[in-house]
Amino acid sequence: MSGIPFAATPEPPYTAVIFTSTRTDGDHGYALMAQRMEALAVEQPGYLGIEASRDGELGITVSYWADDDAARAWKLVAEHLVAQERGRSVWYADYRVRVATVTRDYGGDGPMATGSARG
Amino acid sequence: MSGIPFAATPEPPYTAVIFTSTRTDGDHGYALMAQRMEALAVEQPGYLGIEASRDGELGITVSYWADDDAARAWKLVAEHLVAQERGRSVWYADYRVRVATVTRDYGGDGPMATGSARG
Repeated sequence: MSGIPFAATPEPPYTAVIFTSTRTDGDHGYALMAQRMEALAVEQPGYLGIEASRDGELGITVSYWADDDAARAWKLVAEHLVAQERGRSVWYADYRVRVATVTRDYGGDGPMATGSARG
Repeated sequence: MSGIPFAATPEPPYTAVIFTSTRTDGDHGYALMAQRMEALAVEQPGYLGIEASRDGELGITVSYWADDDAARAWKLVAEHLVAQERGRSVWYADYRVRVATVTRDYGGDGPMATGSARG
């Protein structure tokens, strides 16, 4: 996530993986794992970008993929990494994953945006 | 957003509106507007839930809707509220909106979740 924090996604359709989570207390190597996870995502086929935010209670990470197959492949890679490390329950108190097909997008002033709906 | 921070969404398909934003400096009535916006969303037809996180740089709000029409109707209501108030550019330095159809979801331990994929 260098430069602007928005993912430079292409015109729809593409796939969004919405990962919502609450953390356990303490780091337990989480920051390092999150870094490795992002570095790994960037190398995957079909990776388009990632947007992430965490406040005190809730974290939301949305990763964008060229299609559903790329998102499925990423799920296997991510789960493997988590399993290799300490397991999901060490870092996450609870989580939800939603896989979705983006059908339209629009934005403000920015590299991808036109200022009006494009889909 | 009372109780658990996760939206209690039904089985897919349903619609997710992913709103990613960077804020301007200062509040300018933003906190109050955000409260009103959420209270308004809850009253809309087809509203399923909302998940939101904001760290220093980026905010992500995902609202969930029964279908695409409900999401479109909400867009008009939300834009009307923003226009009635001070206008988007007072609060947001930049933003992206992505409308997506959730095709599958899974989660950890929680009211909606089974611990394994259900789609």
